[in-house]
Amino acid sequence: MGRTDTRERILAAAVRTLATEGYAKTTARAIARVGGFAPGVIYYHFTDLDDLFVATAEFTSEARLRRYRAETDGVSAATDLLRRLRTLYAEDGADGHIAAVQELVGAAVTAPRLAAQVRVETARWLAFAEEVINRLVGGTPLASLVPVRETATAVVGAYLGIEMLTHLDPDLADPNALFDAAGRAAELFDGFRRE
Amino acid sequence: MGRTDTRERILAAAVRTLATEGYAKTTARAIARVGGFAPGVIYYHFTDLDDLFVATAEFTSEARLRRYRAETDGVSAATDLLRRLRTLYAEDGADGHIAAVQELVGAAVTAPRLAAQVRVETARWLAFAEEVINRLVGGTPLASLVPVRETATAVVGAYLGIEMLTHLDPDLADPNALFDAAGRAAELFDGFRRE
Repeated sequence: MGRTDTRERILAAAVRTLATEGYAKTTARAIARVGGFAPGVIYYHFTDLDDLFVATAEFTSEARLRRYRAETDGVSAATDLLRRLRTLYAEDGADGHIAAVQELVGAAVTAPRLAAQVRVETARWLAFAEEVINRLVGGTPLASLVPVRETATAVVGAYLGIEMLTHLDPDLADPNALFDAAGRAAELFDGFRRE
Repeated sequence: MGRTDTRERILAAAVRTLATEGYAKTTARAIARVGGFAPGVIYYHFTDLDDLFVATAEFTSEARLRRYRAETDGVSAATDLLRRLRTLYAEDGADGHIAAVQELVGAAVTAPRLAAQVRVETARWLAFAEEVINRLVGGTPLASLVPVRETATAVVGAYLGIEMLTHLDPDLADPNALFDAAGRAAELFDGFRRE
């Protein structure tokens, strides 16, 4: 297996370990067990765990952002967008991405290099959200009413927080009910947009 | 100092330690140092750290919910509500509440008793949000359009996620700009409500 493959395998194992064990228990030994390799392999690719967590934040964010961009490319109707977000949301949960991100954001409080990386990734997601919002409101009367930057922040924050709630307890915050309700709002929005 | 006072002092110290040190470094020794008491005092009031974290989740949630209820009691205009949320938001940050909650939610992934308590507290906040939304839309044409339960979930999730972002980096997500933008939306809402 090549160097790049091994590096990706370590990063994917770090994501799964963070999601299932939590940050405090994500040791080199735990990651190695999840990934099925020797703990020493980690130190061939990363100087220390801190370095690995910084790379993990970048890895998981980039991988998901690539999927979000591919899936929403050119979409400008809210109903269409929401249908695609529903698929993407299911993927976020399936591979442990959102739970890992939650752990890394929490850990960033006391890890300055990780915090810097989390800020870089957040800025990328905010830029992506701004692009999508601009496509939704562009050329409509809403363009002058909607503050794109603040709406992007609110949307990214809401997505993060709602994912936290739904993964915490699907009974408290049922993703399907939320997507259904948002779907009705999207229909109203698209109707208003066409007027 | 009485038994109740000491217990509250330990809980407040746990909140501050979680906020500044993160969950992984919140040991009995660290909490005792922040609170200015001997580590042994903790075990007179709590069976173990897990027990203390469960109590901390309840303590900080109840204290803030009491303030939120007191401050928003009887408020039914969106502009008025938003002005009060702005004050409450500043308090959330000042006493380390939101950073501690973030740590506890993250830690709940691998701590079943803590997870159960976090779910109980989340249900309380959802019920509170439902009450407030019902007051906002009650007796207006919006009452039949707005799905109260799902809107409450979205609002609580958004509040949590946006607080995470703003505390992560006020330059990325400026709370004042967000409240200003929300204020303009609230004015539109109140105008529509009166029609």
